[in-house]
Amino acid sequence: MAEPRVSSIDGKLNEEFAVPSHVEEVKEKMSAFAKHHAAAGRRVVLITSGGTKVPLESRTVRFLDNFSSGRRGACSAEYFIDSGYAVVFLHRHRSLYPYTRTFSTINMLDALQFRSDEAFGNSGEVVVNQKVLPNIAKVLKRYQEVKDSRLLLPIEFSTLSEYLHLLKAAAQALSTIGSMAMFYLAAAVSDFYIPASEMPEHKIQSSNGPLQLSLNMVPKILSPLVKDWAPQAFVISFKLETDAAILLDKARRALETYRHQVVVANVLDSRRGYVVVVTPSTQAELILTEEDVKNEVEIEERIVSNLTSAHQEFITQQVG
Amino acid sequence: MAEPRVSSIDGKLNEEFAVPSHVEEVKEKMSAFAKHHAAAGRRVVLITSGGTKVPLESRTVRFLDNFSSGRRGACSAEYFIDSGYAVVFLHRHRSLYPYTRTFSTINMLDALQFRSDEAFGNSGEVVVNQKVLPNIAKVLKRYQEVKDSRLLLPIEFSTLSEYLHLLKAAAQALSTIGSMAMFYLAAAVSDFYIPASEMPEHKIQSSNGPLQLSLNMVPKILSPLVKDWAPQAFVISFKLETDAAILLDKARRALETYRHQVVVANVLDSRRGYVVVVTPSTQAELILTEEDVKNEVEIEERIVSNLTSAHQEFITQQVG
Repeated sequence: MAEPRVSSIDGKLNEEFAVPSHVEEVKEKMSAFAKHHAAAGRRVVLITSGGTKVPLESRTVRFLDNFSSGRRGACSAEYFIDSGYAVVFLHRHRSLYPYTRTFSTINMLDALQFRSDEAFGNSGEVVVNQKVLPNIAKVLKRYQEVKDSRLLLPIEFSTLSEYLHLLKAAAQALSTIGSMAMFYLAAAVSDFYIPASEMPEHKIQSSNGPLQLSLNMVPKILSPLVKDWAPQAFVISFKLETDAAILLDKARRALETYRHQVVVANVLDSRRGYVVVVTPSTQAELILTEEDVKNEVEIEERIVSNLTSAHQEFITQQVG
Repeated sequence: MAEPRVSSIDGKLNEEFAVPSHVEEVKEKMSAFAKHHAAAGRRVVLITSGGTKVPLESRTVRFLDNFSSGRRGACSAEYFIDSGYAVVFLHRHRSLYPYTRTFSTINMLDALQFRSDEAFGNSGEVVVNQKVLPNIAKVLKRYQEVKDSRLLLPIEFSTLSEYLHLLKAAAQALSTIGSMAMFYLAAAVSDFYIPASEMPEHKIQSSNGPLQLSLNMVPKILSPLVKDWAPQAFVISFKLETDAAILLDKARRALETYRHQVVVANVLDSRRGYVVVVTPSTQAELILTEEDVKNEVEIEERIVSNLTSAHQEFITQQVG
């Protein structure tokens, strides 16, 4: 099967997906971030995280979405920082965020209380009840360290259009640091969209009867990313399936098609305890044992450890 | 146009929309809540809030969604409680929540700090920085009062199926208190769905080419709600359009079709500053002035004030 020409994908991107107004400004910011950290000898990873929103109407009431809490991306960002990386965190608005993700299921007002001070009476001071959030001091300390060291650059998207244009900008911004850059593409990106030209302006009326939707295929942005935008970078894509039988085959085919370095393959139901890291020449299963789960080990720690080693080797080969 | 028979909607609900396993348990809880408060002379409002998720695959990776942060529902819940109502808050998982909604845009870790105490040194205590969250003491106090008085019963849904079955259960549970019950149906419910029988099990493969989706119309649950499940209750539905020209006509037609008491009509772009409260015999515009906006008045305060008066009148007429 002939692959679409890169130039045609680039053209399509500008014609059929609205360019966010702040894309150049964000690109500048990412570029400065990457150069600053690379100059200090630090590697930089671009993490994409969360699902993309695909509008069905131009004044959007309805949209298609992809299942993704953003847990894997948010969690991985922390381990990359712990491993000495600087992180550009390109994530879906309101998806899980590094550090805060650890208490995302708790209503914060249930974790706060008024401080009563024997010496001074009720001070009006509001404190965290550390029985409700036992790790808060540790998490806050780490969050503040990371913030002070500016190791985390958060960038938000909501729609598929925003995602595609911001990823392109990120790729071009990080290409300036060559093989020191890693792309960790964990976002759940829609495969389908409705082109702007075929989208109704107003809310689709239910009185018109059942709805027929015809969706086009989203251009495979991995192709120009690897070939043109950041050709020296270390690139990891993710493959999520619900059917384990087709997973590894699809992972291998992706590597052949896009010629990038790694596919992390996982199945929806077991994704928190089992992944396969697939490269053109290797295949490593990462598994959490019951013991690991009891000790609250997260599989992202293993994934990140595997990939940072592979990235190191990749850099050495490029130089040598 | 002949209306679908109620019994057929009820049948369809069980055939085509998976029944959540906890529906009976939740119904019991709502029923006890309603009876308890009605016995104390308190009116009870069921608020629905947030958008519904419509899966495209049975092991769901992709879904259709409706634009809705849940702001209107969460905010209205607070004003209903201030007006003496007990509130069943049937809301989309992770949509905005009463009281916490006031700081939903802030990363909580940016609002926390370690308490340094001159007398005792660094205590490891984590406190809220009230420069970042200036209203936190007031909000926390009110939240705790409401919690202690058990005036708020939160129930979550994610999918359209969960929403439909839980709303039916709520209607039946609240029907026991007759006209003391109000339904404030602010959720953004999908008009379209894919029946379980036509849904693929596994993730739709993009390699099969462009996607054709054929969606059925969701049964109009307002019809059995008004006629059968809670015939004595005071029922408000919401109508959101992007096209102002068709809005009032659609609101009037809804009142004629479903024979409930009120439609709150609003246009997407202006929904935070302008709504029309439409009843069979009246039409009231509620508008925030620039002055109101400066004073942080919320339009939900006006909506709730209008509706609680109308509900009072409705109860008096029923008794009289």
